[in-house]
Amino acid sequence: MSEPVLRDEQRVLERIEQARRRPPRLRDEVVTSAHGAGGKASAALVEALFVPAFAPAGAPPPLTDAAVLDLPGAQLAFSTDSFVVRPRFFPGGSIGHLAVHGTVNDLAMMGAEPRWLSCAFVIEEGLPVEELRRVATDMGQAAQAAGVQLVTGDTKVVGRGAADGLYVTTAGVGLVRQGVRLAADQVRPGDQVLVSGTLGDHGVAVLLARGDLALEAEVTSDTAPLAELVGRLLDAAPSLRWLRDPTRGGVATVCNELARAAQVAVVLDEAALPLDPVVGGACDLLGIDPLYVANEGKLVAVVGPQDADAALEALQSHPLGARAARIGEVRGDPPGIVVLRTAFGGTRIVDMLVGDPLPRIC
Amino acid sequence: MSEPVLRDEQRVLERIEQARRRPPRLRDEVVTSAHGAGGKASAALVEALFVPAFAPAGAPPPLTDAAVLDLPGAQLAFSTDSFVVRPRFFPGGSIGHLAVHGTVNDLAMMGAEPRWLSCAFVIEEGLPVEELRRVATDMGQAAQAAGVQLVTGDTKVVGRGAADGLYVTTAGVGLVRQGVRLAADQVRPGDQVLVSGTLGDHGVAVLLARGDLALEAEVTSDTAPLAELVGRLLDAAPSLRWLRDPTRGGVATVCNELARAAQVAVVLDEAALPLDPVVGGACDLLGIDPLYVANEGKLVAVVGPQDADAALEALQSHPLGARAARIGEVRGDPPGIVVLRTAFGGTRIVDMLVGDPLPRIC
Repeated sequence: MSEPVLRDEQRVLERIEQARRRPPRLRDEVVTSAHGAGGKASAALVEALFVPAFAPAGAPPPLTDAAVLDLPGAQLAFSTDSFVVRPRFFPGGSIGHLAVHGTVNDLAMMGAEPRWLSCAFVIEEGLPVEELRRVATDMGQAAQAAGVQLVTGDTKVVGRGAADGLYVTTAGVGLVRQGVRLAADQVRPGDQVLVSGTLGDHGVAVLLARGDLALEAEVTSDTAPLAELVGRLLDAAPSLRWLRDPTRGGVATVCNELARAAQVAVVLDEAALPLDPVVGGACDLLGIDPLYVANEGKLVAVVGPQDADAALEALQSHPLGARAARIGEVRGDPPGIVVLRTAFGGTRIVDMLVGDPLPRIC
Repeated sequence: MSEPVLRDEQRVLERIEQARRRPPRLRDEVVTSAHGAGGKASAALVEALFVPAFAPAGAPPPLTDAAVLDLPGAQLAFSTDSFVVRPRFFPGGSIGHLAVHGTVNDLAMMGAEPRWLSCAFVIEEGLPVEELRRVATDMGQAAQAAGVQLVTGDTKVVGRGAADGLYVTTAGVGLVRQGVRLAADQVRPGDQVLVSGTLGDHGVAVLLARGDLALEAEVTSDTAPLAELVGRLLDAAPSLRWLRDPTRGGVATVCNELARAAQVAVVLDEAALPLDPVVGGACDLLGIDPLYVANEGKLVAVVGPQDADAALEALQSHPLGARAARIGEVRGDPPGIVVLRTAFGGTRIVDMLVGDPLPRIC
């Protein structure tokens, strides 16, 4: 851990560091798709617009994917996501499955057992009732499988052309396991980084389902509820520090968020990243890096080195973690940076996602 | 209470009763604006589509505006609403105020103190960032005034033409006051019906703001957070049975929901309904009944007869309840029906809202 990770990139590094020290600025005059992609522009929107607007006086709220709420005698996790995926049905799932899994997974990443969901529909006039029924049925089945109850909801209808069929927003409430506190400030140098399976399956599945690519391959989305897998991980690895599901922006984005929040370096080994060959091939054809492509049924975990083997075993013992792997480690330096050791022995910086290579995949 | 409320309408009544005894049916093949209006079609959508879909096995969940969740030692209220109002800014407020007030009021109607909010944005590419900032600032100020914290969120961006500028979905969590249980099954014949102020202000304000009407009058939306008002009511009236905020579909709709759920008759006195003369005039011009027009800062309360005076006084002691009035009473018969005693001494049935006279007012 004494040898510097990056050798010939000192100047690049300094420029990145400089840029990061500046307060986030929102230069754009209009909202673009990049603001919804989960990368750099999304972070600027949250930090430069939502945080100051939501805290007109006093301390800004820590706007996170899921909030932890303190009650006497219990801690709740609370999260929300909107789903605008196109097409609404794809190999492996639908907008209904995503709407349940996306929110229960955000709760599970806080060490919570998901319990209750709300759902709100914005529907374009003219949507076939049968299609709405299929989506609602998928939600009901996904909720049952995830052990959560859909308890409250809302429906709004807008005119033709005012929505693209159907948008679904879920919010969820879960109970944080007693004594568990998963947060970036728990992470320290030497910690190990694990992923529960292959990268990018969901994003590529949706992209291929659109039929825009002249590619015959079919890829199945990995959309799945992760709370059970997290339960095993918590049982096996008391030193579990931090969890995140790599959805929009992929593993690269969640690792950058961790590096920035904890002021550590995250060093990933390219050779260790699990990748389905068809997903890898599709990414090559598209010119996109699978490190930035979304999953909807995977997690990235950081554990103390003493628990790394046990954590990996626990993940691999569950069907959703069969292809889990140790993919990197946390270092103290350079703080705030994600570095990839390439398969050829070099290193490169893995920056935050810029732009929106894969719009509307969730 | 022995004299029948309706005299010459026995046949009409029987036909309505017959229709209500049939299981709800969704005859439509496509979703129409009526399904989002909060009336008959919305109820059919919930009962014939969402409830069976969300409970693939076992007891159907009681899908309500706000759910009460049992924790050891505490009860939570949990609610969600999407907001698609057009225009986004109108006299008295904006989509940002509505997004906060709508959800905190759903929580307050369960006797809960609203505490935490989530918010999810679906934004059309090209929305001016300054407009988003105005909306977020309105949300922050409304949240602060309502004593809630915006703690988690999500942003999705869709292409031009795939949304009408901006849709906001909030969800909220609150703590139910200990020992309080507000529900339709608490309501009994003899109970009194109160409203906290003038009817229909919000719906008419938005309609006039659209400029579609050749009417010079300006009406201000009543959008406001109601938890403090509910607190006074709970202090003053231990027999408080049931509360609802008359948003989409207005006072007529919430009274119909109560009548159906409690299998009681709700008898309203037309002469007692508080109405702003400008709102009344606009409704006359539009040919709509203010009983069906939305408020966003009013509540309908049912209290035991012994507490009716104290409840009314408590409401009137608060600026948001200055024009509160006793507007009717609960009877045992005819069950499931809302009846209006007209100003001319006649009676008429106030049915569930049919169609969607005022689309996208929230």
